[in-house]
Amino acid sequence: MNIIRIEVLPCVGSVHIPYLEDQLVIVIDVLRATSTMVTALANGCQSIIPVLTAEEALEKRLTLPGALLGGERQALRIEGFDLGNSPFDYAPEKVGGKRVIMTTTNGTRAIRAAAEAPAVWMASFLNLESIVHAIFRRFDEDKGLDGIVIFCAGTEERFDMPDTLCAGMLIEALGTEVELNDLGEAARILYHSAQGHLLDAVRSSQHGQRLRSLGYERDVTYCSTANILPIVPALTDGEIVWLTDI
Amino acid sequence: MNIIRIEVLPCVGSVHIPYLEDQLVIVIDVLRATSTMVTALANGCQSIIPVLTAEEALEKRLTLPGALLGGERQALRIEGFDLGNSPFDYAPEKVGGKRVIMTTTNGTRAIRAAAEAPAVWMASFLNLESIVHAIFRRFDEDKGLDGIVIFCAGTEERFDMPDTLCAGMLIEALGTEVELNDLGEAARILYHSAQGHLLDAVRSSQHGQRLRSLGYERDVTYCSTANILPIVPALTDGEIVWLTDI
Repeated sequence: MNIIRIEVLPCVGSVHIPYLEDQLVIVIDVLRATSTMVTALANGCQSIIPVLTAEEALEKRLTLPGALLGGERQALRIEGFDLGNSPFDYAPEKVGGKRVIMTTTNGTRAIRAAAEAPAVWMASFLNLESIVHAIFRRFDEDKGLDGIVIFCAGTEERFDMPDTLCAGMLIEALGTEVELNDLGEAARILYHSAQGHLLDAVRSSQHGQRLRSLGYERDVTYCSTANILPIVPALTDGEIVWLTDI
Repeated sequence: MNIIRIEVLPCVGSVHIPYLEDQLVIVIDVLRATSTMVTALANGCQSIIPVLTAEEALEKRLTLPGALLGGERQALRIEGFDLGNSPFDYAPEKVGGKRVIMTTTNGTRAIRAAAEAPAVWMASFLNLESIVHAIFRRFDEDKGLDGIVIFCAGTEERFDMPDTLCAGMLIEALGTEVELNDLGEAARILYHSAQGHLLDAVRSSQHGQRLRSLGYERDVTYCSTANILPIVPALTDGEIVWLTDI
């Protein structure tokens, strides 16, 4: 395999989104959108449909009877929605066999912004190893891919430590054959420095502290756990599904 | 002294600029705007007037006969301007006793965006120690200041390694009595990891590589040198001057 060029971007809604037509896009929102999506699919959820607003979610449900509504604003469940943004909301008995129409402050926006890319995958600590394997396989097979763009989508702030650490773990796992932008290099260094106390680093981040203050301590701990779900969620025709033909 | 709250922001032109009325703002653009401003003042330049566009610079000069025009677009001197954005352009025989009207892609924009703050200072590796001393003195004296906002202004990209390392060096020098946002924490860790090879880290950054490819190797080396100029440049009534009454 040749050297993989990786560009890590810290925020959504930027005017600087690069040319994505030949890029594999990885969206990371550790706390909690992509962690929750991975969990939902692992629990039998049929697909997740990312939308930008609560209004769009309600409209979309008119065309998809039986679909659930999920998501958050200011980390809390949206009024009238079936599910919030906690992975523990997405238990098998709730989401099994169902579609979820989902809107979160940053995660779903990042996914929609990336929709023009040939592949958009959702990563978190939970499924990182599977993402790494899938990247290696995809770059071995698809010679048209020029690089990877990692969207760290996690906060309205423009730099999120948990997402950056997750990006760093991904970069580290891809090995030395990578070419990084400054934020990619920073992510790798920050991940190194957090090895052995990753949970502490996530807990003490701004986003981690905020979720803990809202009573989501358990979410923060769960979302900091690496490699427990062997799933690659991929955006296909506007729906996020468990990618099986990697 | 109480704990100082420090917020490090990675980019200019953001909609998320925090409330600045009780904040000391430090603008960092290592490669090269703030390094060049510090150097110009050390070389006897009377003041630097930051403006946003070349047109605004030309207009401003009509009211200030004798002032020089300086700045860059895409790292190169603007046509018809007296000076570029290299610190070596700002030699004593050129800028001594003169005003410079200056526009750079990011640095001068960051300074203008911060103008509502009670104090706006320009930092670089060159003058970092003086900035640290001035911060300690100011926070000892002015009980109205609530914290520090550090603008890392350096690139159109949203994360710049040289600026972040400089912010990290500043945070490190301020000691343990600080409260940091995620990017501030990252800056401190990244600075630690680069100690002993700071020049290498700046040279191999994206911005460092670009300047070297344009023939500015000497600028990159010079701008990576810490604590050689005892100057605190401060924005006062729209002009950046050597702050002497700290």
